[in-house]
Amino acid sequence: MRTPVALPHAYRLLNHGPTVLVSAAHGGRRNLMAAAWNMPLDFEPPKVAVVIDKSTCTRGLVEASGEFVLNLPCRAQADLAFTVGSTSGHEIDDKFARYGLATLPAERVAAPLLDGCVAWLECRVLPPPALQAAHDLFLAEVVAAHADSRVFSGGRWHFGPEHEALRTLHHVAGGAFFSPADLLQARPLP
Amino acid sequence: MRTPVALPHAYRLLNHGPTVLVSAAHGGRRNLMAAAWNMPLDFEPPKVAVVIDKSTCTRGLVEASGEFVLNLPCRAQADLAFTVGSTSGHEIDDKFARYGLATLPAERVAAPLLDGCVAWLECRVLPPPALQAAHDLFLAEVVAAHADSRVFSGGRWHFGPEHEALRTLHHVAGGAFFSPADLLQARPLP
Repeated sequence: MRTPVALPHAYRLLNHGPTVLVSAAHGGRRNLMAAAWNMPLDFEPPKVAVVIDKSTCTRGLVEASGEFVLNLPCRAQADLAFTVGSTSGHEIDDKFARYGLATLPAERVAAPLLDGCVAWLECRVLPPPALQAAHDLFLAEVVAAHADSRVFSGGRWHFGPEHEALRTLHHVAGGAFFSPADLLQARPLP
Repeated sequence: MRTPVALPHAYRLLNHGPTVLVSAAHGGRRNLMAAAWNMPLDFEPPKVAVVIDKSTCTRGLVEASGEFVLNLPCRAQADLAFTVGSTSGHEIDDKFARYGLATLPAERVAAPLLDGCVAWLECRVLPPPALQAAHDLFLAEVVAAHADSRVFSGGRWHFGPEHEALRTLHHVAGGAFFSPADLLQARPLP
């Protein structure tokens, strides 16, 4: 189901505002955390911005490796997204092992892709590090992207009723998530 | 319907990833553009990040005034959101006048609030301007926030079936928008 996404379409994966799980690996350690605060930053080469707090274990792995993956969890993974978002890699040595999470190898970075997600953006951190210190804000270039072709194809999300559980998650608060629905085609005003 | 939102709750307005309309005013001019690329950046004081392209008319007004408002349009305003997102203030002298858009005065900034939206974040641009030049990325502090209390109260969105048309818009591509639905409460994994 994992299908390559052309890099000029990578921003479309984040355009509608999903919550992501950031995975990173370095020196034999790996971790996974939730990040509702993410957005596309450029079309081509595609870039993203994401907030990764100083207190997180993932932050250290991202800074050491200069890489991360944005994994887009789906409705079927809501409990998992909530759990990795409310636990710390400082307390759990390996969240993947602790929660029995399967991974797929990335193409261009060392960080693992979380299996069962509906899209993945492999990213390399861009300068300047001053931003990271001041605002916990990481800018990165997307060097590879993939999506589950059942719900993303032709550069667009298609959340049909047959794939209810594959819709993206959009965090409200406290583990409550909306999912996208009711596609509406706007028309230009006269 | 416009009700103040406590500043520590301001990030909740953007947490689920809505498309926003950026309004700005300076020297007798005002403008309004769409921005799917936005996110919260901090809790308290609340901050936001938003991409405002060099080619836009709004960009000049934001740079000159150091202020903008993020207006959250709702489903009833999809055509309007699409239209102000696909037209330029360089060609239309005043989009508010051209499309008959009503405004409300902001509390803390000069930029107007677009009437009929479901939330508004009044923002003051933060340094450093180097980011703006390199990435079209604006960081700003939220100095006041408001929402339509029919759909946002107690620090949370509540999109009940009685307010179908007041749900936020999440841009897919080409004027196609999803809206949030099917709230799901996640549970911690054992």
